[in-house]
Amino acid sequence: MGLIVQKFGGTSVGSVERILNVAECVKQETERGNNVVVVVSAMGKSTDQLVKLAKEISPQPDKREMDMLLTTGEQVTIALLSMALNQKGLQAVSFTGWQAGIVTEPVHGNARITKIDTVAIESQISVGKVVIVAGFQGITENGEITTLGRGGSDTTAVALAAALKADKCDIYTDVTGVFTTDPRFIKKARKLLSVSYDEMLELANLGAGVLHPRAVEFAKNYNVRLEVRSSMEKIEGTVIEGEATMEQNLVVRGVAFEEEITKVTVLGLANSLTSLSTIFTTLAGNHINVDIIIQSTTEAETANLSFSIKTEDLMETLRVLEDNKESLNYEQLDAENKLAKVSIVGSGMISNPGVAARMFEVLAANNIQVKMVSTSEIKVSAVVEEKNMLKAVEVLHEAFGLSHSA
Amino acid sequence: MGLIVQKFGGTSVGSVERILNVAECVKQETERGNNVVVVVSAMGKSTDQLVKLAKEISPQPDKREMDMLLTTGEQVTIALLSMALNQKGLQAVSFTGWQAGIVTEPVHGNARITKIDTVAIESQISVGKVVIVAGFQGITENGEITTLGRGGSDTTAVALAAALKADKCDIYTDVTGVFTTDPRFIKKARKLLSVSYDEMLELANLGAGVLHPRAVEFAKNYNVRLEVRSSMEKIEGTVIEGEATMEQNLVVRGVAFEEEITKVTVLGLANSLTSLSTIFTTLAGNHINVDIIIQSTTEAETANLSFSIKTEDLMETLRVLEDNKESLNYEQLDAENKLAKVSIVGSGMISNPGVAARMFEVLAANNIQVKMVSTSEIKVSAVVEEKNMLKAVEVLHEAFGLSHSA
Repeated sequence: MGLIVQKFGGTSVGSVERILNVAECVKQETERGNNVVVVVSAMGKSTDQLVKLAKEISPQPDKREMDMLLTTGEQVTIALLSMALNQKGLQAVSFTGWQAGIVTEPVHGNARITKIDTVAIESQISVGKVVIVAGFQGITENGEITTLGRGGSDTTAVALAAALKADKCDIYTDVTGVFTTDPRFIKKARKLLSVSYDEMLELANLGAGVLHPRAVEFAKNYNVRLEVRSSMEKIEGTVIEGEATMEQNLVVRGVAFEEEITKVTVLGLANSLTSLSTIFTTLAGNHINVDIIIQSTTEAETANLSFSIKTEDLMETLRVLEDNKESLNYEQLDAENKLAKVSIVGSGMISNPGVAARMFEVLAANNIQVKMVSTSEIKVSAVVEEKNMLKAVEVLHEAFGLSHSA
Repeated sequence: MGLIVQKFGGTSVGSVERILNVAECVKQETERGNNVVVVVSAMGKSTDQLVKLAKEISPQPDKREMDMLLTTGEQVTIALLSMALNQKGLQAVSFTGWQAGIVTEPVHGNARITKIDTVAIESQISVGKVVIVAGFQGITENGEITTLGRGGSDTTAVALAAALKADKCDIYTDVTGVFTTDPRFIKKARKLLSVSYDEMLELANLGAGVLHPRAVEFAKNYNVRLEVRSSMEKIEGTVIEGEATMEQNLVVRGVAFEEEITKVTVLGLANSLTSLSTIFTTLAGNHINVDIIIQSTTEAETANLSFSIKTEDLMETLRVLEDNKESLNYEQLDAENKLAKVSIVGSGMISNPGVAARMFEVLAANNIQVKMVSTSEIKVSAVVEEKNMLKAVEVLHEAFGLSHSA
């Protein structure tokens, strides 16, 4: 008799019909003889509706009150799912984040879990109940309601699986698993039967939006065995664990991509040595995430600096840089948008130095210009023009042997 | 500097615009130099929507899960109102029932408050914050979320006013106060400037749905000064306190009425002595509220018994009586519906024995037949045909000197 943590996202619980479907899914797991803890998100678009209400009241709602507001979303789902399970003859009990003992740091909107007091959940499991926990939320030591930010429900599920020493954490979603690339755009995309935590981290970070990187990180740190699978189709998903146990022979495991990238260039930086850190400290202080950074080292007295950001952050980035023009001491700003990032990911790359070279070769052969490059031990990213993105993904997917044999 | 508890019901917080209006109302109270604790209900029809969702999942949803579901409604309102106050430059903080320290008995759907731990609220008041509390909800000693049942938010407000020793508890609603009768039906209805707790209790119990009787009872027990007033119009409301301080000369203070009453008659009761208690114990055990009871005492061996119920309970009442026909030992059941109850209320009646007689005289003079009668120290009720109800209210309102001079 094992213990399984199941997580169902907003789409999977988006209607009464779907909640009943989830209840069936939970029931089947109990019929396999397992104890089940279920983590759910808010129903479909309900969080968006709450955010809209808040924005009508205040353009910048207080973060504490925003947490108070948004946590009602999951509370609705846990109650409804518990009713659905009761209706199917199962004994179920729902817990809000605080009832489940999920303690976070005292930060609103993006809190990290500091500990989980599993006593309440364990006592319900011990009497044979299915425990349903509201994802995305916790409580501070002082009794303030907090939320975990993006990917919060995934994180709740993985953290609970770790704290409860569950045998497995199943992440149910609207896709059937993790693919070699996005199957909505690339027909030859193939489902992976297993990936390693590190590969998943890179794939998640790169916009393969199946599972939040924070949750993967958590799973990696506590060695929680994850499976990403479909809540609609009863088929095998993708297992994420320490080492990808299958298909080890493949160097590249997936091709990720992300649109709406802008490259910002700061021209004529007077003192490149100090201004580099000053620029990024300033941007970070304004919550702008910078991705790839390239500094041109020249013999001249001034240097140029380029970095990539999400296009949605462009206005704010320009404002921050212009507001600080004097202290940063540069001549001019330049921005190029309509760019995209294409990345190849795979643990096998560590021991295969030729992979990046092969990537550029393939792109060049297809007349795709590379604007920026970044590499890590298990990933190579290239910024290309947005119009070339899907073509780049397709040819790389093919060249690294990821496509269906079909 | 005083402490005022304000309560706003579902209609008063039914939209973003109305929540902003409530915020303005709270702000004005703080500008008078008072500390304010605000109790709010769920927005407009949101509770109904949640109930509908639950019913789609289960015809008889688990009560614990129903509480879990419904308490999200007020949590949404407290967060939005707090945002609205922050937006207006006030320091505000919202509390769910459990955060506000509202402890209830371990009953779901209709829990009574057992104690209020005011530490959290008081510490926020002491730093000058407006505290917004979710009405209708509490928590058991074991950390289970409960609801207070009908009139719950009124009860929360009054209980908080008592626990915090507030100077006053203002119940904001969609009417401007307590009237001599329902102004929607009787044009000559007049607003009362003050009524006693006992009068309000009778008026509330009799369907003048401004304030829940439970809250009035609570206010009476803890001597909380209440005022019922409009959240839309800035005019004086009706004060409810120990003694009605104004208009003492009037014997009758108001005329209340209630539609959809059914009279049930049990014919041929064999053993009227024991069966009287058996019948009402059986009905109470099935949650059927019986109002007026009349037993005909005859010389015969069998007796007849009549009682009034809400028409909506008729089917259930007949079922219960028929299921227990053998033990109750009666011959036949009869039911007359399309009845209504009209009541005159006033503390002055205690010392005016002629009031009931005057009432019947007035009704008789208008050809209105009285089907059943019930009296208490401050109330006389008469059951009449529904078609005669408004006529009865009108002539009684006039006869007891309650009408506008207009």
